[in-house]
Amino acid sequence: MIDLSKLSALELHYAASKLLSDYVETIDEDRLEQWPDLFVTDCVYQVIARENADRGLPTSAIYCDSRGMLVDRIVALRHANIYAKHYYRHVLSNVNVKGVEGDELVVQSNYVVLQTLVEGDTHVFNAGKYLDRMVATPDGLRFKRKVVVFDTYRIPNLLVTPL
Amino acid sequence: MIDLSKLSALELHYAASKLLSDYVETIDEDRLEQWPDLFVTDCVYQVIARENADRGLPTSAIYCDSRGMLVDRIVALRHANIYAKHYYRHVLSNVNVKGVEGDELVVQSNYVVLQTLVEGDTHVFNAGKYLDRMVATPDGLRFKRKVVVFDTYRIPNLLVTPL
Amino acid sequence: MIDLSKLSALELHYAASKLLSDYVETIDEDRLEQWPDLFVTDCVYQVIARENADRGLPTSAIYCDSRGMLVDRIVALRHANIYAKHYYRHVLSNVNVKGVEGDELVVQSNYVVLQTLVEGDTHVFNAGKYLDRMVATPDGLRFKRKVVVFDTYRIPNLLVTPL
Repeated sequence: MIDLSKLSALELHYAASKLLSDYVETIDEDRLEQWPDLFVTDCVYQVIARENADRGLPTSAIYCDSRGMLVDRIVALRHANIYAKHYYRHVLSNVNVKGVEGDELVVQSNYVVLQTLVEGDTHVFNAGKYLDRMVATPDGLRFKRKVVVFDTYRIPNLLVTPL
Repeated sequence: MIDLSKLSALELHYAASKLLSDYVETIDEDRLEQWPDLFVTDCVYQVIARENADRGLPTSAIYCDSRGMLVDRIVALRHANIYAKHYYRHVLSNVNVKGVEGDELVVQSNYVVLQTLVEGDTHVFNAGKYLDRMVATPDGLRFKRKVVVFDTYRIPNLLVTPL
Repeated sequence: MIDLSKLSALELHYAASKLLSDYVETIDEDRLEQWPDLFVTDCVYQVIARENADRGLPTSAIYCDSRGMLVDRIVALRHANIYAKHYYRHVLSNVNVKGVEGDELVVQSNYVVLQTLVEGDTHVFNAGKYLDRMVATPDGLRFKRKVVVFDTYRIPNLLVTPL
């Protein structure tokens, strides 16, 4: 298991980037059943508008506080939700390691999600930042807490697929 | 010449990112004559819609299986094709090294190409992923195979400039 | 203080990426008062259209040749300028270290700035490249010269917030 306290700044940056790349791929490649596996069991996944986050208001578009809830979301998406078929494509940058706090790696990054609908055009769907807390596990780094703060507060479609 | 088997995961990631940056610059800076130089002689460059790639259908928007064909494309672009003057700007992320297979470095990444036309606005032109196989040469890493899988299946202009 | 001549290519790349991430965060998080601190006192910050840059024409959208002028811009933005409230979100990629010249690290990268206005949609505001010269200081790397060459030559709003 990785010992975060023994890694250099550069190695921490690489480890964080790698987890983020794996995260994005599970979504963009529609391997959503693997998406919850990138979180530890006792985790938080929150999607919140920048307006609310900046004012300290707790109202979130999505709030899940266990991996089980993440699994439920994917089951619902596959079997219950009705929505327009679409592709997501994440572009992520400015992965900025803020430090190690206890056993957690604190990382911030910017993202933009491009969406392609059936009619074929690709457009900016959502942009914002990730505020992540990652922990080492025997399987590699995993998310302990992921907060998605989005700038786009008019979301044109139901937010089904995770950001 | 680089020995891929002796590089750490971090060094492989850096080497792949560097080739990708050089690749993008030859296109975005309109140094297209240098673009084929980033491929080995016996190479494949394929541009394919995600729909076809996902179903295993071979129909591609572009398929070149030698560096000579890449050179031909640029000659045609400079001298024969008629198209609206435009700029490309690539943003690339999630460079994810999948491993070394034989002498090939297998790398996946996400891209978005922004286009600016003469009237001055910049818009999302095309987004998708790169599936790359890179090999070490005396001049550094080069593409052995580059498959561009694009999400955007309505391409508003003739696909002249490489993605 | 970092000795640039002693860093490996990989370490230079990381150091440059880190400064760029800090730069982007001061803007995207609206900590603009900290933005000039990422430049040395005797610096250049230029924003220029690609058309002019390519032809060697000096006319710039913004030209500041000291940190004091950068501070003035932020003071004006906070107290004098009238403009539509908006968020910026930078996505940056292809950070490509070109070498060390004297005490300056020469770095090029691609950027896209996404803007979100009050009505809530996010759109591509501006795309282009950064041509940076960074120098080591006791506080870490800082910009000696930053030239923003933008593709988008129809800028829909007054260019208030730095790119």
